Amino acid sequence: MKWYEKDGELGDIAVSTRVRLARNLKDYPFPGRMSQQQENEVLHSVSSYLISSAGGTTFRFLELKNLDRITIGSLVERHLISPELAGKNGGGVVLSGDDSVSIMINEEDHLRIQSILSGLRLGQCLETVNRLDDLLDGNFKYAWSDQLGYLTHCPTNLGTGLRASLMLHLPAHTETGEIRRLLPNLGKLGFTVRGLYGEGTKASGSLYQLSNQMTLGLSEQEAIERLDEVVRSTIEREKNLRNVMMEKNPIFLEDRIWRAYGILSNARRISSGEAMKLISDIRMGVSIGILKDISISELNKLICNIQTNCIISAAGKPLTDVERDTERAELIRQALKPTN
Amino acid sequence: MKWYEKDGELGDIAVSTRVRLARNLKDYPFPGRMSQQQENEVLHSVSSYLISSAGGTTFRFLELKNLDRITIGSLVERHLISPELAGKNGGGVVLSGDDSVSIMINEEDHLRIQSILSGLRLGQCLETVNRLDDLLDGNFKYAWSDQLGYLTHCPTNLGTGLRASLMLHLPAHTETGEIRRLLPNLGKLGFTVRGLYGEGTKASGSLYQLSNQMTLGLSEQEAIERLDEVVRSTIEREKNLRNVMMEKNPIFLEDRIWRAYGILSNARRISSGEAMKLISDIRMGVSIGILKDISISELNKLICNIQTNCIISAAGKPLTDVERDTERAELIRQALKPTN
Repeated sequence: MKWYEKDGELGDIAVSTRVRLARNLKDYPFPGRMSQQQENEVLHSVSSYLISSAGGTTFRFLELKNLDRITIGSLVERHLISPELAGKNGGGVVLSGDDSVSIMINEEDHLRIQSILSGLRLGQCLETVNRLDDLLDGNFKYAWSDQLGYLTHCPTNLGTGLRASLMLHLPAHTETGEIRRLLPNLGKLGFTVRGLYGEGTKASGSLYQLSNQMTLGLSEQEAIERLDEVVRSTIEREKNLRNVMMEKNPIFLEDRIWRAYGILSNARRISSGEAMKLISDIRMGVSIGILKDISISELNKLICNIQTNCIISAAGKPLTDVERDTERAELIRQALKPTN
Repeated sequence: MKWYEKDGELGDIAVSTRVRLARNLKDYPFPGRMSQQQENEVLHSVSSYLISSAGGTTFRFLELKNLDRITIGSLVERHLISPELAGKNGGGVVLSGDDSVSIMINEEDHLRIQSILSGLRLGQCLETVNRLDDLLDGNFKYAWSDQLGYLTHCPTNLGTGLRASLMLHLPAHTETGEIRRLLPNLGKLGFTVRGLYGEGTKASGSLYQLSNQMTLGLSEQEAIERLDEVVRSTIEREKNLRNVMMEKNPIFLEDRIWRAYGILSNARRISSGEAMKLISDIRMGVSIGILKDISISELNKLICNIQTNCIISAAGKPLTDVERDTERAELIRQALKPTN
C-alpha cells in the first residue's frame, strides 16, 4: 500500500505533508562541481549504506541514468523526485516500498531526505527524516558550520536545511477569490505558496503547496510548529468559506459537484487538466458530505495515477494523446464505480 | 397514454409526424374579420358538434379566454396549439385524450384540423384528419372554389389546405455541417425546414421540422408521398453521416454521448437549452446502440415535459428561474434512472 492510499488527519483538505532535509557531504564539492567519479562515489556509498542499514524499511535504489523518460516523469508526478533531479544523469533516488520515504542523491545538494504522508502529519514526517538524518550522520561527515548550521548549495536552505510543505485542497479559496488574499498574507508570514509541482508551476485542481521559507534562526521544531499553525488556520478558513458557499447557493454547489461526478464517471476520454478540476469538485463534495461512498484516499490515488507519465508508465508502452486520455477516463471510471 | 409515449416507425430519427388541414366556413368572414358574436358561434357550434359526434374519441374543449398564460404556453410547447392561436382570445381548441388530435378554432383559419403521432406516420395522420374533415364537412359548409380548392386566409394554404411536417432529429447533419447543404436543397424541392416551434424559431437539440410547402397543383396523397420520400432519404443520409462519424472517431462520439448521459443523470439544475442539447446527444446514443435501457419514447416525453411552461404547469404554482431549472433537472434524473 502506497502512502497516498492511507488516510491522514484533516485529509479532506490537507492532501499530503512533506518534510525534507538538505544535506551535503563535507568531503565532496557540491553536486554541480563534482567529477563523474565523485558523483558515483556519493551515489553508491549513500545508497548502499541506506539499503544495508535501514532496519525495518525496505529500500530500493534507482539511478537516473538507467531510467527512461517516462519512468522519470512518473517519479516527478508522484513527488518522489524533483523536476531538477529528473535532468541529472549522475543522480539517483532511494525509495521505501510505500514511496513515503525518498532520498534524492546528487540533486542540488548531495542529499535530499524526504518523508511524505497523507493528511496533516508534520510531526511524523519530521521524525522520519530526523531518524534517517541520524542514521546517515553516523556514517558520513556532513558539511556544517557552527555559525550557519548545515551548509547547502542554495543560501535559502542554509541552517536547518529543512523545508516542510503541505499540499492543500482549497477550492472555496479559489472559487471565492480569497486565494488572492491568502497568498500575499502567507508571504508576509514567511511562507510560500506554489502549484502542484513546486516552484513556477500553476495550481491544478485547486491544489496548493504551502511551505516554510525560513531555515535560519528557527529550530526545526519551531519551523514545523509555525507551519502547522498556519495550515490549521487555513483549513479552518477553507471550511468557513465552503459553509458560506453552501449557505449562499446550495443548488449551485450541489449541481457543480454532481455534474463533476457525472462527467468523471461517464467520460470516455479526458485531459489531465479537466480531470484535475473535476476531481477537485468531487473531493470537495466528499468533504462536505454531498457525495457518499467515495473515499478521499481513492481520490488521492487517482490524482497520482492519472498524471500523464504515470499513465504511460502503467500501460508499459507508448500511447498517443487520445489513447492516454482514453486510458485516464477508464482509470477514473473504475475508481468511481459504486462498488468502490 | 399520450401520443409521444408510443413508439413509431423510424422513431429514433423521426420524432413525430404532423398533418393538418386548413378549413374555413363559407357563411362566416375569415377569423380576423369576424365579430365577437360570430367568433362565439363558430367556436361553440364546431366544438359541440365534434364532442357529440366524435364516436369513439373523447374530446375536450378549451377556450383560450379561460386559460392562464402558463397553460397556454404549455399547449404551444406540446404543439397542440400554434403560437398564433395562443394570442387569440376568441380562439379555442378541441383535443383528444391522448393529445394526438387537435382542432384549433379561429386561428388564422376557422379550422385547423391536426393529427400528430410519433415516428414517421404520414398515412395514418392523413387518414385521421381526413376522417375529421369528412365529419365536419357533413355538418358545416366549407369555403370552396372549383378553381382554387379550399379557400384559406393565407394564399400558401389555398388548394388542399394541407400541411404535413416531420420533426426530425438530425445531430449528425448538424455536427458535420451537412445541414447547411440540406436546407437549400430541400427548399428547391419545395420543402421548408424550421426549428422546434415552427416559423422563425431556432433548431434546438438538432430537432428540425421538415414540411411541405405546396398546396396547389398536388393532391393530398401526392403531397404526402413526396414528403415521405424526402423524409426517408434524409433519415438514410443521417444514418450514413452517423456511421461516418462513428468510424472516423468513435471515441469522440462515445465520449460526447456518455458525458451527456453523465451530466443529465446528475445535474441539480439545468436550462432548457442545455438540456435539449444533451438529450439530443443521448437520443443519438440510443439510436446508434451506445446507450442501452433508455427508450426513445421516454426521451420524447422528456422533450415535452422539460419545456418551461410545461414545468410550471405541472408544478401548479409560480416558480423562480432557479426552481424551474432545479425541477427540470429532477425530471430528467427521474426519467434516466436505470430502473426506467
